[in-house]
Amino acid sequence: MPKEIDEIKKFIRDIPDFPEKGVIFKDITPLLKNPKIFRFSLDKISDLIDKWDFDCIVSPESRGFIFAAPLAYKMEKEFVPIRKPGKLPYKTYSISYELEYGRATLEMHVDAIDKGEKVIIVDDVLATGGTTEAIRKLVEQAGGIVVGVACLAELTYLNPRQTLKDLEIASVIKY
Amino acid sequence: MPKEIDEIKKFIRDIPDFPEKGVIFKDITPLLKNPKIFRFSLDKISDLIDKWDFDCIVSPESRGFIFAAPLAYKMEKEFVPIRKPGKLPYKTYSISYELEYGRATLEMHVDAIDKGEKVIIVDDVLATGGTTEAIRKLVEQAGGIVVGVACLAELTYLNPRQTLKDLEIASVIKY
Repeated sequence: MPKEIDEIKKFIRDIPDFPEKGVIFKDITPLLKNPKIFRFSLDKISDLIDKWDFDCIVSPESRGFIFAAPLAYKMEKEFVPIRKPGKLPYKTYSISYELEYGRATLEMHVDAIDKGEKVIIVDDVLATGGTTEAIRKLVEQAGGIVVGVACLAELTYLNPRQTLKDLEIASVIKY
Repeated sequence: MPKEIDEIKKFIRDIPDFPEKGVIFKDITPLLKNPKIFRFSLDKISDLIDKWDFDCIVSPESRGFIFAAPLAYKMEKEFVPIRKPGKLPYKTYSISYELEYGRATLEMHVDAIDKGEKVIIVDDVLATGGTTEAIRKLVEQAGGIVVGVACLAELTYLNPRQTLKDLEIASVIKY
């Protein structure tokens, strides 16, 4: 078991110019390949949000699921997948938004969130906060309340906290 | 906690004609929305494969991750994501194959599997076995050995065991 949180950074690989020129992509696959570091990372996220009052974890495909699903299992919370267009089989809410590189649309089942339900958003990396903000709007369309955002890594140089000012944010490591 | 495994089926919704006319899609989102049933399902998969000798879980995006990542966490195994083309940032092996409706390509990082490493494949639903067979070839390209396949639901009417004859198969529920 690693002693220090910054130990995690040794298992995250910088990939320059992916998916677009000028972007440095944080590749988490070396971390996923190490069971001790993966477990340590998940337990650290769960420690950070242990006192938060929520019943449901929503998360965008695909990398978000890798952290959100084990947290839902461990913390005994509901898990709601947010997906790209055409992937969810039932009726959906949909939202289009700008992201760091390009434009995207996300969907959520209309029966995914109960009215007044307290929800958190989990993803692997928090970058500009654009995806998180779009997911918040999806949850609010369904009558849910987003109480916070939890992630493994926060890219502070992209200022996600500016976009998500009024939300609690928990990140294990920061760049 | 449910007493019987068939209880799980109450939380899987049939969606006719998705993603193509004539296909009945098994929608697992109601199951994911129920923490007790989700936990029970994962614990049942883990019970079935507890005696298997393996170090690594590989899984295809996106729904596979929802079961594979908690199992990797719980069982302290490596987790390797298999992804659609262009999603993995580092060098990849690639394979194209026929599936139930259409054609698909999958990729895996070239450094994802160690030579001689014992691997299992985890997915939500085992249908024709085509995706599983393609993933096995990817693992073998990297020098790994696939010892078995674990899933929540097996569609026996699509005969996956015919395609995957020489592999151990663990499924919690069968249709």
